[in-house]
Amino acid sequence: MALFVQKYGGTSVGSVERIKKVAERIADFYRQGHDLVVVVSAMSGVTDQLLQLASQLHPEPSEREVDVLLSTGEQTTIALLSIALHALKIPAVSLTGAQAGIITDARHTRAKILNISPKKIKELLRGRNVVVVAGFQGQNVEGHITTLGRGGSDLTAIAIAAVLHAQCCQIYTDVEGVYTADPRIVPRARKIEEISYDELLEMAASGSKVMQARSVEFAKKFKVPFEVRSSFTNAPGTIVKEEVRAMEKVVVRAVSLEPDQAKVTILGVPDKPGIAAKVFSRIAEAEINVDMIVQNISDHGLTDITFTVHKSLLKKAMVALDPIVTEIGAREVRATEGVAKLSVVGIGMRSHSGVAALLFSALAEAGINVQMISTSEIKIAVIIDEAVGKKAAQVVHDAFKLDQLL
Amino acid sequence: MALFVQKYGGTSVGSVERIKKVAERIADFYRQGHDLVVVVSAMSGVTDQLLQLASQLHPEPSEREVDVLLSTGEQTTIALLSIALHALKIPAVSLTGAQAGIITDARHTRAKILNISPKKIKELLRGRNVVVVAGFQGQNVEGHITTLGRGGSDLTAIAIAAVLHAQCCQIYTDVEGVYTADPRIVPRARKIEEISYDELLEMAASGSKVMQARSVEFAKKFKVPFEVRSSFTNAPGTIVKEEVRAMEKVVVRAVSLEPDQAKVTILGVPDKPGIAAKVFSRIAEAEINVDMIVQNISDHGLTDITFTVHKSLLKKAMVALDPIVTEIGAREVRATEGVAKLSVVGIGMRSHSGVAALLFSALAEAGINVQMISTSEIKIAVIIDEAVGKKAAQVVHDAFKLDQLL
Repeated sequence: MALFVQKYGGTSVGSVERIKKVAERIADFYRQGHDLVVVVSAMSGVTDQLLQLASQLHPEPSEREVDVLLSTGEQTTIALLSIALHALKIPAVSLTGAQAGIITDARHTRAKILNISPKKIKELLRGRNVVVVAGFQGQNVEGHITTLGRGGSDLTAIAIAAVLHAQCCQIYTDVEGVYTADPRIVPRARKIEEISYDELLEMAASGSKVMQARSVEFAKKFKVPFEVRSSFTNAPGTIVKEEVRAMEKVVVRAVSLEPDQAKVTILGVPDKPGIAAKVFSRIAEAEINVDMIVQNISDHGLTDITFTVHKSLLKKAMVALDPIVTEIGAREVRATEGVAKLSVVGIGMRSHSGVAALLFSALAEAGINVQMISTSEIKIAVIIDEAVGKKAAQVVHDAFKLDQLL
Repeated sequence: MALFVQKYGGTSVGSVERIKKVAERIADFYRQGHDLVVVVSAMSGVTDQLLQLASQLHPEPSEREVDVLLSTGEQTTIALLSIALHALKIPAVSLTGAQAGIITDARHTRAKILNISPKKIKELLRGRNVVVVAGFQGQNVEGHITTLGRGGSDLTAIAIAAVLHAQCCQIYTDVEGVYTADPRIVPRARKIEEISYDELLEMAASGSKVMQARSVEFAKKFKVPFEVRSSFTNAPGTIVKEEVRAMEKVVVRAVSLEPDQAKVTILGVPDKPGIAAKVFSRIAEAEINVDMIVQNISDHGLTDITFTVHKSLLKKAMVALDPIVTEIGAREVRATEGVAKLSVVGIGMRSHSGVAALLFSALAEAGINVQMISTSEIKIAVIIDEAVGKKAAQVVHDAFKLDQLL
């Protein structure tokens, strides 16, 4: 019999009825003789409610106290889920992050896990208990409650799986797994059976909302294979693991579309060392996340620099750049809204030529203009007009035959 | 400057607006230079909501998990109150019961405080922080979360005041203090300035809802004087402390009326040793709380035993007694609903005769019949018809001149 770590997100435990369903699923595993550590998030909506209360008291509530406040969300869920398991005659014991031995650094609201002392968890497992652990939280070495930030519960589950050498870590969510494209955009999108950490990471960076990049990086670092699957069905999900040889046969794994992007171009920049550094230092100081950056070869000693940001940050970026334009002697700054980023991701493209050619041909045949291009070892991303984003995703999905199991 | 321990109950912190008001009160004390430990309850209604969730999952939820669940209530309040204090530029740090060093026994949902290690509290006070502690909760020596049961937050405040040798412990509530009678029943009732632990204990046992007897007993044991006062006004409250000489000048401190009582009489009981033991063992097995017990002298070897219970327990008591009546050879059992208990309480009556006489005369003059009498060293209680309870409380309050400051 094996040791499973399962993680259920906020939607999966969002009501008393759903908690009962999750308890039944856990009971099935338990009765098959498996050992189980179950990591849960706060019931959906609870975290926002608590933050809303705090914001009524202070425009910028203390991060330490926000952690004390938010950690009650998962604590509520662990107690309720344990009670639901007892109703099914399954022995279960809840542990807060601190009780589970999760030690973090002291960076409140975005702490990093430093160490897990699994003594208590192991002791409870030996007694054949289902151990229900509060995700997203821990304590620092001084005993203050900390939270791990976005995607924190996934991180808790993967870290516990790593330290216990669990046979499998299952991330239960409201989707059935990782798809070749967003099924709402590409109806023929197919669930992927297996994917590498790197591919999922590139997809996370390209707008795929399945998991936070941070948790995938953590799993990659500690070589924890995990499965993303749905808590609403019994269908198998997507296994995420280290690259294996067979994986390389698939050239492109998936297509992602990220709408709501904006493009900023600085025109007529003198092509001298240190100019790009100046531009992006200014942007970083303003705490603006930049996505793609493209600079082409210079013409008569002048070049153009283009970068993309989320459209909500465009105004802030323009304000930050305003003083620097004269300083670096550029001609002008131009902003374009209404663009989207389309990416194709796949480990296989490392050893296959022609991926870029196939991508550009597919777009050209559909009459879609490519405004910017950027590539990584396992990804090609292009900026296109947002209005044709959906169509572009469909033609690219077809061109790479992603609807077919190879 | 002095060290104050303040406790705010669920109504006092029942909304964001009320939390702001409480923060302002605390800020005033802090700015006067005082050191402050503030103990808070869960926001009113929260505990019931959580219990309701648990009961939807299990008819008898595990007490360990109920403690994990309920303790989130106060944890939410400590974070919110600390954030509200920060908005007033007051340094404040929250501590859960466990973080505050409150160690209890392992009896979940009704734990007893074994010990407080105030190291963390003292350290924070030295840094001139307001320390905001979650009432009602602690942890046992194995690190499991426990709760203290009804009145638990008062207990937390008094225990912390004891261990820190606080100058004053203020229990903020929704009434202005302890009154000579319930003002809704006796309009001329007056707030009492000072009262002894024993008097308040007798009043708690007589239906006065100001504080749980348990917290008063704890304060008496550790000689912690405290003040019961309102968080909605600035009026001084009632100081509760050890008996002082001046206190004895007041013969009767207060009148309490406890409605909804029922009377059970076992008639024609053989006056032999062990009969009463049999009766009340049976009642105890059925987990029925008995209040007054009266047995008169026997007549022809037969006696009558009467006791009172809350009317909601009457049926259960009758069922429990049914088999025993034949067993002990009693003639019959008779139940009477619609009675009330009226008590007069006062340390002074120990050294003054005539209290009983004055009480009975006042009732007789008003045409009120006394059905049962029971006395303790500082209390006389009578059972009367519930319909005349209010009138009885008024005439007795007048007879003892409780509306006048002596």
